[in-house]
Amino acid sequence: MKKVAIIMGSDSDMPVVSKAFDKLDAYGVPYEVHVFSAHRTPIEAKEFTEKAEENGFGVIIAAAGMAAHLAGAVAANTTLPVIGIPVKGGAIDGLDALLATVQMPTGIPVATVAINGAGNAVILAVQILAISDKELSDKLKADRQFNRERILAKNAEITAKYSKN
Amino acid sequence: MKKVAIIMGSDSDMPVVSKAFDKLDAYGVPYEVHVFSAHRTPIEAKEFTEKAEENGFGVIIAAAGMAAHLAGAVAANTTLPVIGIPVKGGAIDGLDALLATVQMPTGIPVATVAINGAGNAVILAVQILAISDKELSDKLKADRQFNRERILAKNAEITAKYSKN
Amino acid sequence: MKKVAIIMGSDSDMPVVSKAFDKLDAYGVPYEVHVFSAHRTPIEAKEFTEKAEENGFGVIIAAAGMAAHLAGAVAANTTLPVIGIPVKGGAIDGLDALLATVQMPTGIPVATVAINGAGNAVILAVQILAISDKELSDKLKADRQFNRERILAKNAEITAKYSKN
Amino acid sequence: MKKVAIIMGSDSDMPVVSKAFDKLDAYGVPYEVHVFSAHRTPIEAKEFTEKAEENGFGVIIAAAGMAAHLAGAVAANTTLPVIGIPVKGGAIDGLDALLATVQMPTGIPVATVAINGAGNAVILAVQILAISDKELSDKLKADRQFNRERILAKNAEITAKYSKN
Amino acid sequence: MKKVAIIMGSDSDMPVVSKAFDKLDAYGVPYEVHVFSAHRTPIEAKEFTEKAEENGFGVIIAAAGMAAHLAGAVAANTTLPVIGIPVKGGAIDGLDALLATVQMPTGIPVATVAINGAGNAVILAVQILAISDKELSDKLKADRQFNRERILAKNAEITAKYSKN
Amino acid sequence: MKKVAIIMGSDSDMPVVSKAFDKLDAYGVPYEVHVFSAHRTPIEAKEFTEKAEENGFGVIIAAAGMAAHLAGAVAANTTLPVIGIPVKGGAIDGLDALLATVQMPTGIPVATVAINGAGNAVILAVQILAISDKELSDKLKADRQFNRERILAKNAEITAKYSKN
Amino acid sequence: MKKVAIIMGSDSDMPVVSKAFDKLDAYGVPYEVHVFSAHRTPIEAKEFTEKAEENGFGVIIAAAGMAAHLAGAVAANTTLPVIGIPVKGGAIDGLDALLATVQMPTGIPVATVAINGAGNAVILAVQILAISDKELSDKLKADRQFNRERILAKNAEITAKYSKN
Amino acid sequence: MKKVAIIMGSDSDMPVVSKAFDKLDAYGVPYEVHVFSAHRTPIEAKEFTEKAEENGFGVIIAAAGMAAHLAGAVAANTTLPVIGIPVKGGAIDGLDALLATVQMPTGIPVATVAINGAGNAVILAVQILAISDKELSDKLKADRQFNRERILAKNAEITAKYSKN
Repeated sequence: MKKVAIIMGSDSDMPVVSKAFDKLDAYGVPYEVHVFSAHRTPIEAKEFTEKAEENGFGVIIAAAGMAAHLAGAVAANTTLPVIGIPVKGGAIDGLDALLATVQMPTGIPVATVAINGAGNAVILAVQILAISDKELSDKLKADRQFNRERILAKNAEITAKYSKN
Repeated sequence: MKKVAIIMGSDSDMPVVSKAFDKLDAYGVPYEVHVFSAHRTPIEAKEFTEKAEENGFGVIIAAAGMAAHLAGAVAANTTLPVIGIPVKGGAIDGLDALLATVQMPTGIPVATVAINGAGNAVILAVQILAISDKELSDKLKADRQFNRERILAKNAEITAKYSKN
Repeated sequence: MKKVAIIMGSDSDMPVVSKAFDKLDAYGVPYEVHVFSAHRTPIEAKEFTEKAEENGFGVIIAAAGMAAHLAGAVAANTTLPVIGIPVKGGAIDGLDALLATVQMPTGIPVATVAINGAGNAVILAVQILAISDKELSDKLKADRQFNRERILAKNAEITAKYSKN
Repeated sequence: MKKVAIIMGSDSDMPVVSKAFDKLDAYGVPYEVHVFSAHRTPIEAKEFTEKAEENGFGVIIAAAGMAAHLAGAVAANTTLPVIGIPVKGGAIDGLDALLATVQMPTGIPVATVAINGAGNAVILAVQILAISDKELSDKLKADRQFNRERILAKNAEITAKYSKN
Repeated sequence: MKKVAIIMGSDSDMPVVSKAFDKLDAYGVPYEVHVFSAHRTPIEAKEFTEKAEENGFGVIIAAAGMAAHLAGAVAANTTLPVIGIPVKGGAIDGLDALLATVQMPTGIPVATVAINGAGNAVILAVQILAISDKELSDKLKADRQFNRERILAKNAEITAKYSKN
Repeated sequence: MKKVAIIMGSDSDMPVVSKAFDKLDAYGVPYEVHVFSAHRTPIEAKEFTEKAEENGFGVIIAAAGMAAHLAGAVAANTTLPVIGIPVKGGAIDGLDALLATVQMPTGIPVATVAINGAGNAVILAVQILAISDKELSDKLKADRQFNRERILAKNAEITAKYSKN
Repeated sequence: MKKVAIIMGSDSDMPVVSKAFDKLDAYGVPYEVHVFSAHRTPIEAKEFTEKAEENGFGVIIAAAGMAAHLAGAVAANTTLPVIGIPVKGGAIDGLDALLATVQMPTGIPVATVAINGAGNAVILAVQILAISDKELSDKLKADRQFNRERILAKNAEITAKYSKN
Repeated sequence: MKKVAIIMGSDSDMPVVSKAFDKLDAYGVPYEVHVFSAHRTPIEAKEFTEKAEENGFGVIIAAAGMAAHLAGAVAANTTLPVIGIPVKGGAIDGLDALLATVQMPTGIPVATVAINGAGNAVILAVQILAISDKELSDKLKADRQFNRERILAKNAEITAKYSKN
C-alpha cells in the first residue's frame, strides 16, 4: 500500500499533529512522520519531497502555523497530492496559517483542511488512497457508519433526557 | 479512467468554474458538469453524490459562494475525495465562502483550494487520480516543466529589459 | 401549541444550547431536543426536518460551529422558519460559524442570532409562535417588563453607589 | 392577513430593499414601506414600532448599513419578530452592518439574514406568517418547487453542453 | 462645573467602566453612573439623555459590548458630545462592539475610543470640558507631565539595567 | 469663537476631507485647513499642534489613511480634543486606518468617527464647541430637526408610493 | 556598491513592482529584476538566492500575492536582509499576502512593508545599504527634505485656499 | 561596531521585548534599551532618534501594541532602518498593532516582523549590520546551521519514534 507522509514545520506542532497517528493506525495505513521546516531545513524538506513518490508515498500531509509555507513548499516539489493543516498559533487566531496554506497560486494546489484539522487530513488522505483500494474504501464507509450510529445513540439519549413535549 | 464531477451551486458560478473545463480537456480526463444547490435541490445533489462512486467518478469538485455548504453537503454523502472551491461573492470579499468550505468538522473533510481557484481544483483532482495512473502523473510533471520554462523565459526577458547593473 | 425543535450539530454544543431549555420551560413551550449532524447523519437530519411541520413543530432552532451548515441544511428541507445559532469553536473566534450560518443564498433563509446566542434563539422562536398566540405574546411582554425592572433596579443601586455629584 | 412592515434606515438603501417589494407582491402579502432612522428619527421609529402589533403587522423587516442599529432599535420596542438586513456600505465590506445587526444582547433578538439579503428577509417573513396560514405555506412550497425545477432545467442544459465523458 | 454621565449597557460592563471613576475623582469632575440598555430600557435611556443637557451634563460616556448600540442611541437624543467605549465580549474579540460604535451614519457622531478604553474616555471627556475651563486644562497638562516623567524614570531604569554597550 | 483645525495627512485625502468645509461654513465656525504628515513633516505638525490652543483653536480634526498615525501624533502634542477620521485607502478596506486611529493607549485619546466620516467629524467638533456656546447648540438642534423633517418627508413619499396594504 | 535584487512571484505583479525601478534609478543603486516563483521555479529561486551574496547583492526585495511564500522562501536561502512586498490580489483584500509574508517563524525574518508598498521597499533597501555608504545616506536625507518641502508647499497652498478664519 | 537601539512603547511590552536581549548578547552586538512612548514622551523619542545615527546606532527596533505608532514615529526622525514589532494586546488579537506598524505611507518605511516577533527583529537587525561585517555574517550562517541541525536531530528522533511503515 502507498504510504502517507506527515510533515510538521516544528515539533511544537506535535499536539495538533499527533491526533493523526491513531487514526492512521486504525485504518492500517503505513506512515512516516517528519519535522521539516520550509525555512530552516529547506534542503531536507525538498529532498524528502522530491523522492516521496519513488519512495512509495501516495499522499503528503503538511502542518504548519503562522506564515504557513510548508504545505506549499512541499507541493512545489512533487506532483503527489499535498494536504495542508493550518496550525493555530499565538496571534490572529489561526487566520494567518489558513490563508498562507489555502491561497496557493494556480499550478500548485494544496488540499487545505480546517485549522488544527489533523483528523480530517488523515481521512482525506485515506479517501485519496481508497480510490484504487476497495478495502480502504470499505473501512471509510464503516467508519462513517460507526460515527453515524454514535451520533444517533447520543441523539436518542439527549432527546429522551431533555425534551419536554 | 475515473471521471471528475464538477458541481456548482448556481449557474452564476460559471465564470469561475468554466476555467476548469479546458484544463481537464488538456489532461484528457473525462468530466461531468452539474448545477446542484445544497439548499434548493438537496435531493438531486444527494442522489448524484451517493451514486458517484459506482457511476465511475473518482473525485468531485464543488464550487459555491456565500455560506458555501455545497462541498460539505456533497462530502457528507460519499467517501470519494471532495474538492471545494470557495467562490467570491458580493460581500466579505470571499471570506464567507472560504470559511464555510474549509472549516469542516472531523469526519467529513473537504479539500479546499483558494478562493475562485478552479484551476488548482482541477490540478488537485488530476493529482489524486494520478496516484494510480502513470500517464496522468507524467502529464502533471510535463505541465509543471512547461510552466517552469514559461516563467524562466519571462524571467530572462524581464531581467534583460529592466535590470540596471 | 406548536412545538419548537432544538437541533445541535454535536453534543459538544450542549453547554451553549442547554441555556435554551430553561427559557422554553419558563414560556411553557413544548420542545424536542436532537443531535443531528448535517454531515454525519444527513439522512436523519433530513427525515426529521421534512416531517417537522406535520409532526407539530412550528419553529426549528439549529446550533452548530465551524463551517456551520446545520441550520442551512435544515432550512433546505422545510418551509418552517429556521433559527441558526453560530457556536464559537476553537479558532477564528466564531466568525466561521457566523458567516456559514447567516450568508445563505436567496431562497433558503436562516434567521441568525448572535454567536452562542441560545437565549435569543428561544425568544425569537417564542416571538414567532406568539403572532397567533395572545398568551405567549403577553408572556413576552411580561418578560420584557421584568428585565426592564431588573435593569432599572440595578441602575438605581449603581447610580446611588458610584455617582459623585 | 397580518401585514409586513419594511423599514429602511435611509432612502439610499432602496436599491437593496426594493428587491423585496415584488417578492411580497408575488406572495400576496400586504406591506407598508418606511424610511425611519434609528438615530435621526428615533421618535417616529419608536411610535411606529410600538403600535405595529395593534396596527395589524405580524413581522417587521429592518434594513440598515454601517453601525446598523435600526433592526435592534425596532426590536426593542415590540415583541413582534424583527428581521434585520445588513446593508453593505462604503467600507469594511458589510462586516460592520452584519455584526451590528446580529450580535444582539440576550432579551432582544434580531433574526438576521445575509448582507443585502432582502429576498431572504421576505421569504423568512412569509415563513413566519405561514405557520398559521395554510395558503401561504402552500405558496412557499410551490415557490421552492419552482426554484428546484428551474435549477434542474439549468443543470440538464449545462450537463449536456459542457460535460466530456 | 458641567457633569459627566457614564452609562453602561449592562452591569456586566462594570469591570471595564469602573476604571473611569477614580480618574474622574482625580480630576475633580462630578459624574453620575447609570445602567441603561439601548434595547431593554430604551425609554429610560431616552428620558435621561434628552434631559441631560438641562440637568447640567456636558458630556456623556456610553459603554457597551456586542452589537453596541448604546452610544449611538444616546447620541440620537442629545446634541451633547457622546463618547463611546466598545466593550470586548465573548466572541469576535471586540470587533463587533468597535464597528457598532464607530461606524455611525452622518448626522449623529459618536466619539469612539479604544476597545475597553474607559481611561481614555474620561480623559477625552475632561479635554472637552477643559476647552472653557482653565483649571481643568492645567490638570490635563499636569497629568501629561506626570505620565511623561513616570515613563522617563522607567526608561532611565530600564536603560541602565538592560543595555549592553 | 474658538476655531477648528482640519489637518489631513496627504493632499490625496482632499476628496474625503473637503466634505467638511461646507458643513463648517453652514455652522459659521471658523477653520484652518492644513496638510501635515505625521511622518514626512513631523516638526511642522508638532509646532502647529503645540501652539493650537494659544492660537485660538478649540478642536483639531485629523484625517489619515493606512497606518493612520496623524490623529494620535497630533493628540500627543496638545490637550485639546482631537477627532480622528480614518480614511479608506487601497487595501484592507479601511480597517487599517480605523484600528490605527482608534486603538490609542491610555493617556492620549483620539475621538474616532467612522471611516471617511468627515461630516460627523465636523458635527462632533461643533458639539464640543457648543457646550459653552448657546447659539451653536441651537444650530445643532435646528440641524437635527431639519434632517428629521427631511427623512419624514422622504418617508411619507416612499410609504405612499411603495406600500401595498 | 552592493546591488539590490527585485524578485516578483509572477509577471502579473509588474504594475506594483515597476514603481520600484525609477526610485532605484534616482538613488543610483544598481539592481537586477527577476521573475521567480517560490512554487513553480523553486530551483532557480533557490540558486539565485544562495549565490546572491557572493554575486554582489546586499538586499533582496521579493513581491508576491495570495499565499505569498516568495519572500520567506528567499529568506530561507540567504542571510542577506530580505524585504517582502505583499501584493493585493483578487480576494481577501491583500490580507492573505500580508499575513503570509510577515508572520514568519523565528529564525527567518522578512522585513515586511505595506501591501503594494514597492516604493517603501526600495527606500528601506537603500536605508540598509546606506548604513555603510555616506553618499546614499545623504541622498536619503535630501529626499526626505524634498518630500517635506513638497508637502509644506502643498500645505501653504491649501491653507490659503480653503481656510475660513 | 554599530549599536542596535531597542525601544518599547511601554514597560508592559517587556515580556515580548526581553527575548531580544539574549539573542543580541549571543551575536555580540551592543545595544541600548529604552522605553519611549510615541504619544506620552514624543519629545524624548524624537531627540533620541534624531541623534541615533551620530550616536553610533545602525538599526532601531521599535515594539508597540494597539495603535502601534512607535516604529513609524521613530522612522519619521531618522533615515536609519527601523524594524517594527507589533505587540499583541488585549483585543483584536494583535491585528491592530500589525496594521498600524506595517501599513506605512510611501517615504517612511518600517521593516515589520511578525506579531510579538522580537527574535526575528534581532536577526533582521543583525542581517542588516552584517552586510558590511563578515564576522557577523558568519555568525548568522552558523546560527542557521545550528538551527538546521537541531531540527534534523528532532526529525530523526520523531521519525524513529512515531512512524509506522
